[in-house]
Amino acid sequence: MIAFLLVAPYLVSAQEKSDEVMIASIYDEVLSNSTIYENLRVLCKDVGHRLSGSTGAAAAVEYTRQLMIAYDFDTVYLQPVMVPNWKRGPVEILKITNSKKRGVIDLNALALGNSIGTGPQGILAEIIELKGLSEIQERKNELAGKIVFFNGPMNPTLLETFSAYGAAVSQRSSGAAQTAPYGAKAIIVRSMTQSLDDVPHTGSLRYQKDIKAIPAMAISTKDADLLSLLLKDQADLHIYMENYAEMLPETQSYNVIGQLTGTLFPDEYIAVGGHLDSWDVGEGAHDDGSGCMQGIEVLRVFKSLNLKPKRTLRAVMWMNEENGSKGGKAYADLSESRKEHHIAAIESDRGGFVPRGFTSTGSAKQKQQLSQWKVLFEPYGLHDFDRTGGGADIRPLSKQGTFLIGLLPDGQRYFRYHHTEKDVFEAVDRRELELGAASMASLVYLMDQYGVEN
Amino acid sequence: MIAFLLVAPYLVSAQEKSDEVMIASIYDEVLSNSTIYENLRVLCKDVGHRLSGSTGAAAAVEYTRQLMIAYDFDTVYLQPVMVPNWKRGPVEILKITNSKKRGVIDLNALALGNSIGTGPQGILAEIIELKGLSEIQERKNELAGKIVFFNGPMNPTLLETFSAYGAAVSQRSSGAAQTAPYGAKAIIVRSMTQSLDDVPHTGSLRYQKDIKAIPAMAISTKDADLLSLLLKDQADLHIYMENYAEMLPETQSYNVIGQLTGTLFPDEYIAVGGHLDSWDVGEGAHDDGSGCMQGIEVLRVFKSLNLKPKRTLRAVMWMNEENGSKGGKAYADLSESRKEHHIAAIESDRGGFVPRGFTSTGSAKQKQQLSQWKVLFEPYGLHDFDRTGGGADIRPLSKQGTFLIGLLPDGQRYFRYHHTEKDVFEAVDRRELELGAASMASLVYLMDQYGVEN
Repeated sequence: MIAFLLVAPYLVSAQEKSDEVMIASIYDEVLSNSTIYENLRVLCKDVGHRLSGSTGAAAAVEYTRQLMIAYDFDTVYLQPVMVPNWKRGPVEILKITNSKKRGVIDLNALALGNSIGTGPQGILAEIIELKGLSEIQERKNELAGKIVFFNGPMNPTLLETFSAYGAAVSQRSSGAAQTAPYGAKAIIVRSMTQSLDDVPHTGSLRYQKDIKAIPAMAISTKDADLLSLLLKDQADLHIYMENYAEMLPETQSYNVIGQLTGTLFPDEYIAVGGHLDSWDVGEGAHDDGSGCMQGIEVLRVFKSLNLKPKRTLRAVMWMNEENGSKGGKAYADLSESRKEHHIAAIESDRGGFVPRGFTSTGSAKQKQQLSQWKVLFEPYGLHDFDRTGGGADIRPLSKQGTFLIGLLPDGQRYFRYHHTEKDVFEAVDRRELELGAASMASLVYLMDQYGVEN
Repeated sequence: MIAFLLVAPYLVSAQEKSDEVMIASIYDEVLSNSTIYENLRVLCKDVGHRLSGSTGAAAAVEYTRQLMIAYDFDTVYLQPVMVPNWKRGPVEILKITNSKKRGVIDLNALALGNSIGTGPQGILAEIIELKGLSEIQERKNELAGKIVFFNGPMNPTLLETFSAYGAAVSQRSSGAAQTAPYGAKAIIVRSMTQSLDDVPHTGSLRYQKDIKAIPAMAISTKDADLLSLLLKDQADLHIYMENYAEMLPETQSYNVIGQLTGTLFPDEYIAVGGHLDSWDVGEGAHDDGSGCMQGIEVLRVFKSLNLKPKRTLRAVMWMNEENGSKGGKAYADLSESRKEHHIAAIESDRGGFVPRGFTSTGSAKQKQQLSQWKVLFEPYGLHDFDRTGGGADIRPLSKQGTFLIGLLPDGQRYFRYHHTEKDVFEAVDRRELELGAASMASLVYLMDQYGVEN
């Protein structure tokens, strides 16, 4: 930081000195006295996974409500929201039935969220491999009656794993809708990860109105490689798919909200949190138990350090980010109908890994203000303040002019766990989780102290 | 990086552009084609742990020798080095014998490396708790006949975990030698970690000439807390210690060296690697299988990209860092006797975690040169280039004026695993390991290309 060191004497005011001291006390408090890691353990081990509409989701609502009451926040309440109610069903089968080399081969697979099932008759069909959606047009005449196998890998050379994910995930989210019109009977998708292993990654798909819904499953990357290899030798490979996934009618659920009411500007809100729902495998530890527990921890730190916020702070557990984002929309709609003004919202939904910075979406002035605070975070290892981003659950607040911010943790390990049975409590490191929470609390402190530009 | 962006147009020369391109191709090669993760798996799972003098250490020497031969390096050879041969022994017992609340309590414990054992008669003695070496003077008259329990924790609020380790580890390394003169019969030490769990962390101690050697064991942090709590209620707690640790005579071992000979300046050497020995629990995955495999990967990348180095590059697997550092000394001594000139050496011995920068020890000019290259590494997430450091195995090269460099990975998770049964292959992430190797290879590329300042 030579450039910074040279100009520092002119920049660091007495006020900034006191900010430094306050931020140090926030980090110290979290690293010394937090029970965030234990809270996450309870959410993962006692509640478990919690897809919208599940009993786990209901238990998570009650657990976080009680937790915030125990922390004695000023107000703790539920916000009703209707959510989709998708069920995986009791049995999932995906197998190659006629490999000349290997006979019948069971594949590691999970139905994609929101997909329909095959029912008990199953689907037996020839397989056709595409490397991505871009190949559909060229080969549209070959798809009828087939199971389409999307095998475009995440690019391992992209340092930003979320960029690699973004470039590949359309196969999962719209592969079914884009091939059904050409007569595809089902699709299977290479799991969204750079890891090479036996773990299938689920995740949501979207069907399109007036396009036939067809079943869709994800397979592990090792099985995707095996299938691709076998197809090179034997073009008439057949796959049998059977599962009982189904979308039930919408059901009642809730966002969970805890609040510390502002002493000076109670009508200016800062929301911070993550999404409470998770996929129905694993424990939703990184995605997004971590973000929820960090949101609660931010308010706990204010209580514990006896910081009376000037503005109203809310820890929000949004419901249903994974397969509908109904919680985020309901929160913003209700906020708007109440004429609330959220000056800022921070979402943590990239895992409980060591924090590297914040992404943001807002006005030039807002982004400049965030950038000026960077110097206060560099001693804690946060250097990355320039990227655009926010979070799926806070995006609907942008209509209020809310400054949208995402915690940006290191992303290298995220897609080992994302949407799998491996996303469990043990995959989260206590110090990394705590440092993320302390970073969020520090930024909330600064925004509460100085407000946010327009 | 606003400051940088403003001045960038004046700084980035055509040469730097081509460095950018070359570094991108190095990262791409490692992230796309490396087998470093599989190599580490073999070292961890097929070789296993490998304390100096053990059969595992001999197997590791042979494995890395064959691996570098298979990669077709110009020269691969062993460098003989005599090493200490410490054995843990077959049984380790540490228990509280007379808790009024709980009766007999087994404690999770490991003998400290280099320590003597109690032998079959064991040691039964009253326990006295100290928070650190600084309390010895004050309480020296209370130590006679006792087992001294050093319970100073690593400071969780220090962001730099290695600083917290450095501040606490003297209890382990010299607690025995400093209390034996006052009649202490043995010591036990709180494990060097911020984690609160049941896992004891071993590590080396040093006895002093003319001071009686007494047995020493580490206990898990949870057991340390328990013991401390029980002592508050019952000052006459007794501990029984039994183990069969012993130091056998020195034995023959080897540094393993692979070399790519320089085309223009073959007499200028750049060494890169880690230490091949590990503690005798776990698999030495982070400490320091990762560093060894990264050193080999650096040379493999040069081969694979057909980069003919101007200077001579060596991948070095130093033996015996953990309990004697004989390999590092032997390497430097031999190098000196051959009048070799190492312009630089890079050691990776802080775990296979995501890289954050490099530490260094050298002249002002050398450190300035490293600092100027920082801009090339920032796109890969490396921001930290200003700290002093190097590595235990390369330190003896400083007599040659060698620029000493340490890979600086993120340190938050290191002390969960350090010197424990938990330091296994599964604790290392493939991408994090690869990014460290690519960072080291990129820095070696720059130093090979431009040389190193004096």
